[in-house]
Amino acid sequence: MSKKTLNLGMVGYGFMGRAHSNAFRKVGNFFPAEHQVVLKAACARDAGKAQAFADTWGYESIETDWRKLVERPDIDVIDICSPNDTHRDIAIAAAAAGKMVLCEKPLGRNPAESEEMVAAIEKAGVANMVWYNYRRVPAVTLAKQLVDEGRFGKIFHYRAKFLQDWTISADLPQGGAGLWRLDVNVAGSGVTGDLLAHCIDTAMWLNGPMVEVSAVTETFIKERSHSLTGKVEKVGIDDASLFLARFANGSLATFEATRYARGHKALYTLELNGEKASVAWDLHDLHRLQYFDHSDQGIVRGWRSIHVTDGDQPYMKNWWVPGLQIGYEHSFVHQVADFIAGLESGVPAAPTFRDGLATDYVCDAVLKSAASRQWETVKQAS
Amino acid sequence: MSKKTLNLGMVGYGFMGRAHSNAFRKVGNFFPAEHQVVLKAACARDAGKAQAFADTWGYESIETDWRKLVERPDIDVIDICSPNDTHRDIAIAAAAAGKMVLCEKPLGRNPAESEEMVAAIEKAGVANMVWYNYRRVPAVTLAKQLVDEGRFGKIFHYRAKFLQDWTISADLPQGGAGLWRLDVNVAGSGVTGDLLAHCIDTAMWLNGPMVEVSAVTETFIKERSHSLTGKVEKVGIDDASLFLARFANGSLATFEATRYARGHKALYTLELNGEKASVAWDLHDLHRLQYFDHSDQGIVRGWRSIHVTDGDQPYMKNWWVPGLQIGYEHSFVHQVADFIAGLESGVPAAPTFRDGLATDYVCDAVLKSAASRQWETVKQAS
Amino acid sequence: MSKKTLNLGMVGYGFMGRAHSNAFRKVGNFFPAEHQVVLKAACARDAGKAQAFADTWGYESIETDWRKLVERPDIDVIDICSPNDTHRDIAIAAAAAGKMVLCEKPLGRNPAESEEMVAAIEKAGVANMVWYNYRRVPAVTLAKQLVDEGRFGKIFHYRAKFLQDWTISADLPQGGAGLWRLDVNVAGSGVTGDLLAHCIDTAMWLNGPMVEVSAVTETFIKERSHSLTGKVEKVGIDDASLFLARFANGSLATFEATRYARGHKALYTLELNGEKASVAWDLHDLHRLQYFDHSDQGIVRGWRSIHVTDGDQPYMKNWWVPGLQIGYEHSFVHQVADFIAGLESGVPAAPTFRDGLATDYVCDAVLKSAASRQWETVKQAS
Amino acid sequence: MSKKTLNLGMVGYGFMGRAHSNAFRKVGNFFPAEHQVVLKAACARDAGKAQAFADTWGYESIETDWRKLVERPDIDVIDICSPNDTHRDIAIAAAAAGKMVLCEKPLGRNPAESEEMVAAIEKAGVANMVWYNYRRVPAVTLAKQLVDEGRFGKIFHYRAKFLQDWTISADLPQGGAGLWRLDVNVAGSGVTGDLLAHCIDTAMWLNGPMVEVSAVTETFIKERSHSLTGKVEKVGIDDASLFLARFANGSLATFEATRYARGHKALYTLELNGEKASVAWDLHDLHRLQYFDHSDQGIVRGWRSIHVTDGDQPYMKNWWVPGLQIGYEHSFVHQVADFIAGLESGVPAAPTFRDGLATDYVCDAVLKSAASRQWETVKQAS
Repeated sequence: MSKKTLNLGMVGYGFMGRAHSNAFRKVGNFFPAEHQVVLKAACARDAGKAQAFADTWGYESIETDWRKLVERPDIDVIDICSPNDTHRDIAIAAAAAGKMVLCEKPLGRNPAESEEMVAAIEKAGVANMVWYNYRRVPAVTLAKQLVDEGRFGKIFHYRAKFLQDWTISADLPQGGAGLWRLDVNVAGSGVTGDLLAHCIDTAMWLNGPMVEVSAVTETFIKERSHSLTGKVEKVGIDDASLFLARFANGSLATFEATRYARGHKALYTLELNGEKASVAWDLHDLHRLQYFDHSDQGIVRGWRSIHVTDGDQPYMKNWWVPGLQIGYEHSFVHQVADFIAGLESGVPAAPTFRDGLATDYVCDAVLKSAASRQWETVKQAS
Repeated sequence: MSKKTLNLGMVGYGFMGRAHSNAFRKVGNFFPAEHQVVLKAACARDAGKAQAFADTWGYESIETDWRKLVERPDIDVIDICSPNDTHRDIAIAAAAAGKMVLCEKPLGRNPAESEEMVAAIEKAGVANMVWYNYRRVPAVTLAKQLVDEGRFGKIFHYRAKFLQDWTISADLPQGGAGLWRLDVNVAGSGVTGDLLAHCIDTAMWLNGPMVEVSAVTETFIKERSHSLTGKVEKVGIDDASLFLARFANGSLATFEATRYARGHKALYTLELNGEKASVAWDLHDLHRLQYFDHSDQGIVRGWRSIHVTDGDQPYMKNWWVPGLQIGYEHSFVHQVADFIAGLESGVPAAPTFRDGLATDYVCDAVLKSAASRQWETVKQAS
Repeated sequence: MSKKTLNLGMVGYGFMGRAHSNAFRKVGNFFPAEHQVVLKAACARDAGKAQAFADTWGYESIETDWRKLVERPDIDVIDICSPNDTHRDIAIAAAAAGKMVLCEKPLGRNPAESEEMVAAIEKAGVANMVWYNYRRVPAVTLAKQLVDEGRFGKIFHYRAKFLQDWTISADLPQGGAGLWRLDVNVAGSGVTGDLLAHCIDTAMWLNGPMVEVSAVTETFIKERSHSLTGKVEKVGIDDASLFLARFANGSLATFEATRYARGHKALYTLELNGEKASVAWDLHDLHRLQYFDHSDQGIVRGWRSIHVTDGDQPYMKNWWVPGLQIGYEHSFVHQVADFIAGLESGVPAAPTFRDGLATDYVCDAVLKSAASRQWETVKQAS
Repeated sequence: MSKKTLNLGMVGYGFMGRAHSNAFRKVGNFFPAEHQVVLKAACARDAGKAQAFADTWGYESIETDWRKLVERPDIDVIDICSPNDTHRDIAIAAAAAGKMVLCEKPLGRNPAESEEMVAAIEKAGVANMVWYNYRRVPAVTLAKQLVDEGRFGKIFHYRAKFLQDWTISADLPQGGAGLWRLDVNVAGSGVTGDLLAHCIDTAMWLNGPMVEVSAVTETFIKERSHSLTGKVEKVGIDDASLFLARFANGSLATFEATRYARGHKALYTLELNGEKASVAWDLHDLHRLQYFDHSDQGIVRGWRSIHVTDGDQPYMKNWWVPGLQIGYEHSFVHQVADFIAGLESGVPAAPTFRDGLATDYVCDAVLKSAASRQWETVKQAS
């Protein structure tokens, strides 16, 4: 075996650090390629945590300062899984050091940060990707394939929501480990950047750019104790964010994200209605795609529940046999596989940083609209 | 309006008396025909109950003796909705009096009674029908249409079950009003004649005759107080009845009925698997048909959930508009409509008494097999 | 039997005329009351159509001018099932004649008409009701019961949509029999008054008044041939209507209605998320209620699919037995039963005309917002 | 890191070889333990295939003769993933060499082989386990937990089926790579040992031993070309196998397995109905458990669709966050984790070889009954 190595430096050790590490470890077992990922170094400020993480996942070494990591000559790729307030500086430094850069979404805490990141990456000309992983759930990828085949005709409607219920308790603090998503200074925004960003990325991938939005947001629980300061502090994030949108293709949409929808843990749903067909998907049963084809004979026409586990469906020939489902984590494996395939083919895998910026612009228009109570035009990333 | 009248004499006033009366009253509103049903007389032993029933449903008169009813010259059709132990005598007398005869299922309490009934009806040459109403749930009728179109190829498997849970409590008495189905002397059998009979009728309609069966039955609660005697008496019915079957076309089947399946109120399900397609249905969502067509393109192949409410689907153009579902009671309306259509076309509506006898023969083979612990050959009705 | 009679005069003979007539005919069979509905007269401009309708449904007589109908002394109740542009004049005249008035929704083509109707009705002091029938689908009524029991705690979210696909073809004309809903002069608006009105009525019944809305509408097909003029004319209705809303209780909502959602025939869905529980329902499986109770033990907590067919659930003890579902038409039977019960108890059944006006105000705010591209405050009806 | 190593020798490189290798590689990332699995050697007769497999999965070395593998002193555990006709000899030799032995199911091709294997294992006193992996799908494990908590009361019914459709084409050959399951000499039986064995293992785990069975089997396609001989040869396996069963606790059951159920790829379903509650599960949506608790209040009683992804549900705290599902492959990871936990706790993980023998006895009774057309008593393994 004379594989090319792809030496990885990981920043962060939380939920996403685990999901990405698992993907990097598994990709070679299921998606043969010229490159082999080597887990070179894990980086976290706390040396003990970094070492424990490295031990669990098989990283060869640790760093406690990301600046050192990005300077290491034995690292090819920097993967940024640390909280949002660190994305910009790490990405810019990594790009400057000539590293490929993978970054958890959203890019920055706001478009200004994101624009700096895109500029740095593009100036450096390094390979880059943002972790909007849901594009690579096979059922969602199949939906994209159906769109690209022109099966839907003119599109009239799109709707998406991402419903969770984990912050309903007023006793939940904000800030600190596992809870930085409730701290606006770290996260940049609430569900808009965390959940809607996913919905928006998939939506524009499937249905093209958005033109304008009208939004409303709410912070249901106004004050929470802060894990870092120990004091009750004002909550700065949006707990819920809803918006109406018009796409460039003339279709209309509703979007909604919240962490106050009792009974839904991570219910990301999407639906697209076209003249000739419709398609729908949800994350709680992610291995199924619902598809309605109006050209089916009338008496036996109905929504098809497609169990996306067959070898002719996206990514599935690399896994098990028909009928045996894969899960959430596999979307990350696919993204790594595609990133590597992009390196080898010369056609970069999407979403790139510039694609991520497009999503950040929509998020920004949403937050602006919620504040202005006006329709806001969406800035275009390219 | 110069409609031909069809003067009805109803025997019984219970659950089925209501379901049938509703059907006779509604049929003309939705299914135009030359004949108009007239609710002529309701018959029950208790004059008060007969009158209350007649008042509620608009019957013109009452009788307290079915022998008088069948002799009345102003009656064209006798509908037998009284308990099973009365079916034979009423049917034979009605046929002898030249009346058309409709009979709730099963025909008799055993094949001997049923054979007498068939002989009487056929000798008299009167129109006749058994109320296996589930054939006329539009989704089930659609399944039959798909079978008749040859969409399935060679059939490999059939499976059906009818699950209820209403007799789990040992405190439930047997016998008397509403509970005669637990009294073997009145009912003839338990779930075999009550629930499996429905499954068997539909199965043979869709998949042809059965050849042989291997069965097991159980009476979970051995003794219950008897409503009529006031004493605790041995329970003679089968609480659960399961069997394996081989159809004449070579397909294999499982059948199961029980009143001890906690969580299921009236879950009649059926499924047929053919070489080229499969179909499934259940009574708890009776307006949907599940259909799988292997000739669909691979990447978008899946079970179709057909919402059977369109005008081109069986019976539905006579009801509302697409998307608006009908319910259980409508199957009876359809059966009346088809009975009348049969009178007018000269092609009798099925299932006839002879069709009902075929089902009774299967039920009998099931009970025999459960007793003999052997495979039993099914006697054929024609 | 010495029932009080309730003599009905029906205006209209279309889809709603049939649905209501069926309800009036059936109510006495299933919901015993002091009053008995008598189908006294059916009214339509075309005598032949009126007579055919009367024959089918058993109306005793016909009228060809609604002005005559409302003046007939033998009529107690006028039921308005004719197109929207006739509602105001008939209702006002009927009220002036001292008749009880039932009116299909929406009340008028716009709030001005609706206000006149409410004023007339209230001045006359006659019993009145608007046919927002979905309140009386048992699963929806059960949802209301759960709300009234306080099971949800603080409400955070409400969402509803009503999706159809029957006008996607550009070849469909506007205007005339069966198509007046596409003619803005007759209908007043498109999906806003036709479909959203249902969603809004249920929403305010379950979740209280709405405060403000931000909306967008679209007319996808700009011109259609007109059945009455024979010419291609501009389409004045809204094909799709989407809005964000804030309720008085602080909850946020998305609403959407369209006739361009391929694959959905009449998919009215609603969901309410509260602090302690959530509930969801849809019209395509109307006999089920989805319920999530956060107080359930964690390991077995999940959405409950409640098959609303038990005797202890709203309206169901009057129908069949557990497990046997009813359909769309039964919601109208329940509404008649409750109207009669209201007459007998002295507590009028809702929704009254004033309740209907509240819904019309929301619809008006939606249309205004779509035009102004601003949030619009909702006028309150009481 | 001072982990104890568990040196693995893998026999086989097919579907199961991949599934197990993946599990051995992942277990340490998600289930911390004292032992660390080391992929020491992969064994296959073809050196090229063995090396390719070793390269893909990271095995340190290869062997081309399992006899050499079981003799290697650096191997602690032998995992048998080769076809059924090799199980006995390898297991016996491995046990004799003092290795722990893991074996794919079923144990032998018939009870005689299985008994020899159990005897060898128990004589050697080595740790052992059979790969009935579905016990460790979290939803199934949760069902077992609910059973053990006594939530169901007296059990009345059990039903299971395993439906596939991959052998419907008569053009599919038997024998050779990927198709040995159609060759009776290699496999021992058809769907009985392949699919029903899974159903039986879970059933007895949840519902205790079976007493007697009545079965029917069918070979729909009588002859197929043989990949190894190149000739058309008689098909010796059962294509479909159905049986009725009585459990020791008095409950009745239907079981069915087939590879001729069009539309079902790997639809393993199970349901258990008890006096107080019921539970159901299926492999096509393996992350959900359906649960009905009769003690729920009547008006809101319904089947709960439990999305088994929460930290308090079996195995799930080791994976992602609530709402994010895992897939098929994770059941193997759990089995390895439990095997290791069993080594460390001294309480061996089930199912052991003796447990596997119990399932083989049921399979044998099924095949005997299909031949004898009699009820057959099930031999008990302990």
